[in-house]
Formats: sequence, structure tokens, C-alpha cells
Amino acid sequence: MSETDHFFDDATSTREQLIQAAYYALSEHGYSNLTLEKIGEEFEKSTSLVYHHYDGKDALMVELLEYLLQQFKSDVPLSTRDPTAQLHEVIDHVYSSDEESVGFDRALVELRAQAAHNEEFRDLFERTDALVQHQLAQIISAGVEDGTFVDVDPDQTAAALFVNFIGGHTAKCTADAETTAAAKAELERFVDDVLVD
Amino acid sequence: MSETDHFFDDATSTREQLIQAAYYALSEHGYSNLTLEKIGEEFEKSTSLVYHHYDGKDALMVELLEYLLQQFKSDVPLSTRDPTAQLHEVIDHVYSSDEESVGFDRALVELRAQAAHNEEFRDLFERTDALVQHQLAQIISAGVEDGTFVDVDPDQTAAALFVNFIGGHTAKCTADAETTAAAKAELERFVDDVLVD
Repeated sequence: MSETDHFFDDATSTREQLIQAAYYALSEHGYSNLTLEKIGEEFEKSTSLVYHHYDGKDALMVELLEYLLQQFKSDVPLSTRDPTAQLHEVIDHVYSSDEESVGFDRALVELRAQAAHNEEFRDLFERTDALVQHQLAQIISAGVEDGTFVDVDPDQTAAALFVNFIGGHTAKCTADAETTAAAKAELERFVDDVLVD
Repeated sequence: MSETDHFFDDATSTREQLIQAAYYALSEHGYSNLTLEKIGEEFEKSTSLVYHHYDGKDALMVELLEYLLQQFKSDVPLSTRDPTAQLHEVIDHVYSSDEESVGFDRALVELRAQAAHNEEFRDLFERTDALVQHQLAQIISAGVEDGTFVDVDPDQTAAALFVNFIGGHTAKCTADAETTAAAKAELERFVDDVLVD
């Protein structure tokens, strides 16, 4: 169904199957309309078992985010070693409108918004953010070192790209398509005309 | 209390006072925890009158967003005519962490996230987005015309800046302070070193 399906290929434990059910229910209903009951409907074993394991949807959301974070850590998402091509690959991924993953993309915007009020969500997003920024900084650092990129501060450029990605991801779910496409084109121009030496 | 207070200086009608109450309740409790009852507590006239006027909180949120959009249209937010200084003023505004407005800033992140699922919210944000992008494009266009800026496409650059602002606003409410500060510094560098001729 979605590219995240492979996360759950080996969902054999009850915990993993609960997280899988939470993922599908979240993608279908969004965060604000999500209930433990709806998660239970996606859970093959038994609806009542969800209530047995979790007090409320937020505890399960935290588990899902934690699970995706661990998966993300063990993933190797880039198909190339060329720094410019790597950045373009990430930009394509962030800005792409994939019909299969639109439900989860939208839910992720809602979950991040919850981090504005919820300390536990915030902690999880900060850890994921740090990981993504670290990977971006490594790409930029490699590009600066091999002379592909001009001499920028990798950490600062990574932070700016990352904040742009938060905006791009949010825009593709909440803004009009023209805005998102123009922002993507300008970001690509930045990489090719400003960052590349 | 906040810089938005002046929006409500002349809140004499019941409708405006309801919108004002919605603004304060939203800033205090956030969107997901907001109820008509909590809005009623901020409403001086009578709590039950809120239920008389509105079926649910979303109808009042739409009115609030509509009201802020109208205020925004009649506002003249920039204190300078210099295009570079204007962009820095907008960047400062988006990235600033103002203790007075942090509640509403966070709520706005939540409201935009609702636009991922709610057509009415989405329509309102698209109209606001278009207005902000139009103003940014005018600043950039003026800068290109008077030779301050290099020859960029004003609409495309405005879209990219705007999406960056969505990210910056979201980051200041949901990411760590270092990320937001580094992203702001890099954006300022972009304006001064790349955009300025």
C-alpha cells in the first residue's frame, strides 16, 4: 500500500502489530479524528486488546514514532554517493506527492503540530530532527571536502535545508500545489546554482 | 498582552467579542484541547451564548482565521521601504520567539495542520498564503527593479521564502532552538550574500 509497508514486513509480535494498526488508522483518519477504537478496527487480533495495552492514542503514537525512528536509523535511503544527486534525492522525497503515502504525510504534519504542546512528542521529533540534520550535514560536508560544493558551514546549511523540508512537507499537505512546486524549483536552483561550486 | 491585542481594540459587537474569546482560549489551551466551554470561559457576556452562536469550535476557528486575514489585509506591517531591510524584518518576525505570542504561534501550527484534513481551513490558509506570497513577491520585485537584488523570478523566490517561513514558524514551536537559530542565520546569509547583488 505505501512505501512504509516494508517497515511492517516482520510484524509478528503483538506490539508490532499494534503499531502497524496505529499506522494504518492514523493514515486513514488523521490524528485529531483518531481513537483507540479506530486503531482496534485495524488490529487483526482483537479490538479490546488495544485498550488492554494502551490508555490513550498518544501513548501508541509515541510508540509508533519511536518505531519509525528506529527503522529510519537502520535504513539506507539514498541510492547514490554523489552529494548533489543525494540532495536532489532527498528534495524529491520531501516534496513528492505520493498518493500512497498522502495519509501518513498529512498525519505527520498533525503529529509535529502536537509537539508544540506535548513534551513527549517534542522529544521524539527533536531526536528524529537531529538524526536527519546529521545525515544532511554529512552529505554537505562530503560535498565541501571533495570540492563539489562551495565552502559553506555544513551544520548551518543542514539546519536551513531541514527547516525548509519541514516547510515543504507541511506545504505539500496544506498549501496549494503551485506554491509547493515553485518552492521546490527554487530549492533545486539553490542547490545547483548556489551550493554547487 | 500580545501584539495581536490591537486586533481587538474595537471589539464591541458580540461577534467580535466571541472571536476575541476564541483567540485567547486558543492561545492558552491549543487547538486539540480547545472546547466551546473553554472559549465560553473567556467570553465576558455569558458562556451559554457561545453555544447559541456556534455548533462546534471549528466554526469559530474559521471565523477567527477569517477575521485575522481581514486585519492582516488592512495592516501595514513593514517599517521600511528598503527591500533588503524589509525581508530581514519579515524573517525576524517569523523566527522571533516572543513570549507574549508563543501560545498563538503554537496554535497556528496546529490550525495549519488541520488544513491537511479540513477543506474550510485549507481554503482560508490558501487565501492567507497567497496574500503573504504576493507581498513577498512585491518586495523582491522592487529589489530586482532597483538593482538591489540579482535577477531572480520574484514569484518563485517568494514561494520558496514562504515555504521556508512555514518551516521556520513550525520549527520555532516544535524543534530545538539551535536548529531554528541556525536556519535563521542561513536564511539571512542567503538574503545578504545570494539575493543582494
